[in-house]
Amino acid sequence: MSDEQADGDETGERDDLEAVLATVRERVDPDADERERLREVAERLAERAEAAATDLCPDADVLQVGSTARNTWISGDRDIDIFVRFPPELDRETLEQYGLEVGHATLPEGHEEYAEHPYVKGTVEGFDVDVVPCFRLESATEIRSAVDRTPFHTQYLEERLDDDLAGDVRLAKQFLKGIGAYGSDLRTRGFSGYLTELLVCEYGGFRDLLEAAVDWHPQVELDPEVHGRETFDDPLVVIDPTDPERNVAAVCSPDNVARFQHYAREFLAEPAVEYFKSVDPDPLSESELRDHLERRGTTPVAVRFDAPDLVEDQLYPQLRKSLAGITQGLDDRGFDVFRATTFADDTAVVFAELAVAERPAVERHEGPPVHVQGHAEGFYEAYADDPDAYGPFIADDRYVTEREREFTAARDFLESDRLFDVGLGAHIETALEDDYEVLVDDGVAALLEEFGRELREYFEPRP
Amino acid sequence: MSDEQADGDETGERDDLEAVLATVRERVDPDADERERLREVAERLAERAEAAATDLCPDADVLQVGSTARNTWISGDRDIDIFVRFPPELDRETLEQYGLEVGHATLPEGHEEYAEHPYVKGTVEGFDVDVVPCFRLESATEIRSAVDRTPFHTQYLEERLDDDLAGDVRLAKQFLKGIGAYGSDLRTRGFSGYLTELLVCEYGGFRDLLEAAVDWHPQVELDPEVHGRETFDDPLVVIDPTDPERNVAAVCSPDNVARFQHYAREFLAEPAVEYFKSVDPDPLSESELRDHLERRGTTPVAVRFDAPDLVEDQLYPQLRKSLAGITQGLDDRGFDVFRATTFADDTAVVFAELAVAERPAVERHEGPPVHVQGHAEGFYEAYADDPDAYGPFIADDRYVTEREREFTAARDFLESDRLFDVGLGAHIETALEDDYEVLVDDGVAALLEEFGRELREYFEPRP
Repeated sequence: MSDEQADGDETGERDDLEAVLATVRERVDPDADERERLREVAERLAERAEAAATDLCPDADVLQVGSTARNTWISGDRDIDIFVRFPPELDRETLEQYGLEVGHATLPEGHEEYAEHPYVKGTVEGFDVDVVPCFRLESATEIRSAVDRTPFHTQYLEERLDDDLAGDVRLAKQFLKGIGAYGSDLRTRGFSGYLTELLVCEYGGFRDLLEAAVDWHPQVELDPEVHGRETFDDPLVVIDPTDPERNVAAVCSPDNVARFQHYAREFLAEPAVEYFKSVDPDPLSESELRDHLERRGTTPVAVRFDAPDLVEDQLYPQLRKSLAGITQGLDDRGFDVFRATTFADDTAVVFAELAVAERPAVERHEGPPVHVQGHAEGFYEAYADDPDAYGPFIADDRYVTEREREFTAARDFLESDRLFDVGLGAHIETALEDDYEVLVDDGVAALLEEFGRELREYFEPRP
Repeated sequence: MSDEQADGDETGERDDLEAVLATVRERVDPDADERERLREVAERLAERAEAAATDLCPDADVLQVGSTARNTWISGDRDIDIFVRFPPELDRETLEQYGLEVGHATLPEGHEEYAEHPYVKGTVEGFDVDVVPCFRLESATEIRSAVDRTPFHTQYLEERLDDDLAGDVRLAKQFLKGIGAYGSDLRTRGFSGYLTELLVCEYGGFRDLLEAAVDWHPQVELDPEVHGRETFDDPLVVIDPTDPERNVAAVCSPDNVARFQHYAREFLAEPAVEYFKSVDPDPLSESELRDHLERRGTTPVAVRFDAPDLVEDQLYPQLRKSLAGITQGLDDRGFDVFRATTFADDTAVVFAELAVAERPAVERHEGPPVHVQGHAEGFYEAYADDPDAYGPFIADDRYVTEREREFTAARDFLESDRLFDVGLGAHIETALEDDYEVLVDDGVAALLEEFGRELREYFEPRP
C-alpha cells in the first residue's frame, strides 16, 4: 500500500471496493430467470427420484444438496446434486443397487460413475446432474462414507446462509477461482465450496473474510460450533460444524493459504475486477522457452511417460510423490535441483531445472573415525589397494577416500535403473517400467505442444 | 591384519619387530664418539656462559636443556640449548640485556633472534647453539614466558629417563618423523619432543606406547602427576607434570593423533624399517598433474601471492584461516569445494579443487513467510516490479524470487573485491591487497616449479 493510499479517504476506498464488488456481483449472481429454470429442473428431477426411491424402499427420501441447493452457485455453474437417502439398516450392496436404479429412472440417458458409491450422472436441459445414494444417519459422526456427510453440511448451511451471505459466498468463490486457489481436488489442494461457505459465515461476509485473512498467522483455527477435540498440523483449521473430528480445510495447502492471504492484501489495497478472473495463459512459444533458458543458465531435464489411467485425485498425489523422489535422487547425487514441477495430460512429466547438471569423476567418501578399530581397519583395507580410489587419507579423525562417482551427468542417472530406487508413486513406477523418455536442455521443447500453458506458468510464476 | 597374521606365531612377530627396532636403533642412537664430542662442546659453552653470567649477576646459573641434555637426541641432530637463569627479582629489560651479553660472550660469531625473549644463536664446531635467558622460578606455574618452563621439563625428565627409555624416545621420535607427525610447530601441529618423552615414560617404552595407541579412543587423557584441574577439548590430553593447567598435546591436531594411531596399527601388524624414514616426494610433473585433473574431472583454482614475511608459526595459522575463509566463500556461492589446501615458500597459495566451478545466472532468494506482514509486503514490493527477477511466487508459506546471481564462475568471485569479505589472516589480507593472481584449470601448472612436492602430496594423499 503506498503512503498516498494509506493516507487516502477511507470512504473513497470503500466505495472503490464496493463498486468492484457490485461489478462482480453482476456477473456471478444468477438472475431470476436462471434461478427459476434451475429450480424447475431440480424439482422435477427430485420428484422423479423420490418416486423411484420410495417404490423400492418406502422409507427413502430425496434431498437437493450442494451449491445449487444452498443458493451459492455462481451464475453459469450448472451442477444439480440430488442425494437419495436410504435407512441405515440397508446393507451397502442393496443401497448401491437401489441407488443405481433410482439414478437411471431419474436420468434415462445417464451413465454410471464411481466415487465412494457408484452413482448415475447425466445431462438434463443443459444441467449436469448427479444422482447419488447415501445413508440417512442421525449425526455426521456416524457416517460410513464421505457422501453421507453432505446432507448434514447442506442442512447446517441452509439455516445460516441468508441471501446476503449467499451472495458473499459467490464473491469469495469467484475470488478464489481468480487466484487459482478454489477446489479441494488433490490437484489444486485449495478451498472447497463448503470451506468457503463456512469462512464467509464465520467472518460475516466476503470483505470481513478478506480483512481477517490479511492478519492471519497460521496456524489459524476456527471452530464454529466450539466442539473440536482433535489437533491438526494444517495451516488452516476449520472444525466441521457437523463433525468435531474433521478439519474441513485439511486438504488446503500452505501455498494456497498464503496465496489467499497475499491476494486479500493486494485486493484490499487496490480493488480491481481482475482478481476475479481466472488466468488462462497462452502456451509458451519455443523462442520464449529458449530465451528463458538462456537468461536463467539452468539445465532443464524432464522424465516423460504415458499418464497412468487414474482420476486426478489419485494421479496428482502420485505425481507429487514421484517429483519429490526424483528431485531427491538428483540432489543426492549432486545435481542441484533449482526448481521443479510436475504436470499431466495424455502424458505425464516430472520436470526439473538443474543448477548443476554435471559432476566430477570422483566423489568424497568419508570412512569411520580411525579409532573405531574394526570398522576403520575394514575401511582402510578395502580402499588401500584399490587402484581406482585416491587415499585413504586422514581428515580430522577419519579415513577419507575419493572414489569413482557413479553418475557424472544427470541424464545418466535419469536413464539408469537407479531411478527406480527413489520414492515413486506405485502407478508411476509401473508406467516408467513400461517406458519413458528423458529430455535434457533444448530437448524439453518437445513438451511445448502438450504443456505450453504449464510451462508458461512455470517460467512466469506469480503468487 | 590378515587372518594368517592373526593366527601367526606371536614370538616370531615379536622377533620381527625387535629386529626392525634394532636396525633403527643403529641409525638413531648416537655412538660414543658423537656423545663425547657433544658433551665436550656443551660443557665448554656452558662454562663460558656461566662465567659471563655470574660476572653480570652473581646469582645467575646455567643449565643445559633439550634433547641433547636429556640424552634423547637422534644421531645427527646437532642442537645444543643453553639456558641462562637469572633471579626472578630482575626486571625483564635487564634480563634481556644480560641474556644477550651472555649470548655474545658465549657465541662470539652468533647473531640475535627473537622468540619470547631475544636470544643469541650461533654455530660451534658444527653444532647449532642457542643461548637463551630465563627466570629461575620455584615452580613452573609461576612462569612469565614459555621458556621459563623448559628447565622444569628437563629436570622432570632427567629424573625419569634411564638409558633404555631414552633409547625408546629416540625410536618414537624417529617414527613420528617418518609418518610426518613430529613437531609442535604450527605448520605440522604434531607431537613435540617433550610430549614424545612423556608418552614413552608414561607407557613404559616405545612398543608399549604403540600398543596403547592402537586402542586409543579420543579423548585420551594422561596425567602423570595426577594433578590436572582443567578440562580440554583436544583429542589427546597430557597434563604437564610441571604445570597442572597445561595440556602438553594442545597443539597436536586430530589428524596427527589419528595418523599416529593408524601407523601404530600398521607397524605392529607388519613391522618395517620404512615407517621410520621420512618421505621426501619427487615433484609432480606437468603430465602427472594433467593426468590427475583429467581423471578427477574437478576444476582446480589457486590464489597465489607473495608470502608475507612471517615466521612459520605465524604464517601457517593465517594461511589456514584464509583457506577456511576462501573455501567458505566459494561454497557459499555454490562453487562446491571438493578438497583444498594451502602451501607457502616464496609465494603462498590457497589451492582448491572445485566440484562445481560454474553456476546458473539465477539464484533462489527466499523471502519471509507471507503472514509476517511488514517484512512480507516489503519483500514483495521490492521484487514485484523488478524486471530482472522472476516472481515473487509462493512456495509453502513464503515468498520466493529468483534473481540474478552475483558470480556465475568461481574465477569471477576470486578476482572480485568480495574475496576480501571472507575471513582472511591479517597479513594475508595485506598481501592480497598488494597483489595476487588467480590460476584456474591447467593454469595451476604454474605452481609446479615452486610446489611440485606439495602437489604430489595433495594428489597422492596417504594417511
